Amino acid sequence: MSAAIEFYFDFSSPYSYLASELIDELAAKYGRAVEWRPIMLGAAFQKAGTQLLINVPLKGPYSLRDFSRSARFYGVNFKFPQKFPLATHYAARAYYSLMARSDPRTREFAHAIFRAYWVDGRDISELPIMLKVATETGFDAQALSEAVNMPEIKERLRAETEAAIARGMFGAPYIIVDGEPFWGADRLPQIERWLATGGF
Amino acid sequence: MSAAIEFYFDFSSPYSYLASELIDELAAKYGRAVEWRPIMLGAAFQKAGTQLLINVPLKGPYSLRDFSRSARFYGVNFKFPQKFPLATHYAARAYYSLMARSDPRTREFAHAIFRAYWVDGRDISELPIMLKVATETGFDAQALSEAVNMPEIKERLRAETEAAIARGMFGAPYIIVDGEPFWGADRLPQIERWLATGGF
Repeated sequence: MSAAIEFYFDFSSPYSYLASELIDELAAKYGRAVEWRPIMLGAAFQKAGTQLLINVPLKGPYSLRDFSRSARFYGVNFKFPQKFPLATHYAARAYYSLMARSDPRTREFAHAIFRAYWVDGRDISELPIMLKVATETGFDAQALSEAVNMPEIKERLRAETEAAIARGMFGAPYIIVDGEPFWGADRLPQIERWLATGGF
Repeated sequence: MSAAIEFYFDFSSPYSYLASELIDELAAKYGRAVEWRPIMLGAAFQKAGTQLLINVPLKGPYSLRDFSRSARFYGVNFKFPQKFPLATHYAARAYYSLMARSDPRTREFAHAIFRAYWVDGRDISELPIMLKVATETGFDAQALSEAVNMPEIKERLRAETEAAIARGMFGAPYIIVDGEPFWGADRLPQIERWLATGGF
């Protein structure tokens, strides 16, 4: 089995959510695993000097239309949330705490968070709500509640974000296949070609 | 036959060039014509407050890689030119002068300009070079040379650009199918679905 695909994302990024619903199946088709790594996209925006898509004149209204249309195109359940953007550090830290404990359901946690926000419009930036989503999905809210404030977990999220930026990440999803970076859910067809042919 | 697809582009936009090599065949498959309309992308960038992709930190280096990779993905001949960006108003005005005369080879002129720049790296911002490309493609350089300075032709390009921005254009290619706007060569699969299904 070849090296895992690296999938950098922010829980608050709509195109990251779309990719999250598609990437594992695509990778499995070519015998690849996927490493999921939530990061803080705001840090990358700051580095690149870019701003939130929906705040850009002309591009903003188009983007809102494209989010929903792209979801329909991919057959992914999607509803643009009332609160956008929002902070995702609690959810991302909870993710890394599960990963640090090698919890076999870490991936399920990520899906639950993504869907709570992008389908049900729940405010996952609020710690109690994030923990409620975790509880509903079968995770130990108490353990996660402690983990999200642990220095080593905070540091892990910072380090993963820095590492992603060091590898060129400026937007999300940012997907690396055998060293080749792909930005955006709309690059999945190129990723598939890359996996099928070993590069083109 | 349904309404023509509207294809707004700038000769200096790499993704516009990629779309220019693909859009007519795609449209024909669904019995559609395409109206090609060069515009001044700089005016849209000004309106949206955005800057040239390659000048954005992190995003710039990625974009250069993505231009070439996307060209290979689509099987389109492509070589990033030494001079980029460059002014395209002469080429765009020449295009509209041919269109105003209902020249049946207006489309061929556009292809020749795109390829002169994106395959052969010729500096189409220079009037003599743009005219040379036109001559080589069988057009009357003298007539085009006069046309590019005619007030009504200059005004046509301004008006087309304004109209595109009024319709939400902020980047190129910007392709409108039955009122639905699509931005980017990477939206061609969505355009195809739209054409096949009448919207989704």
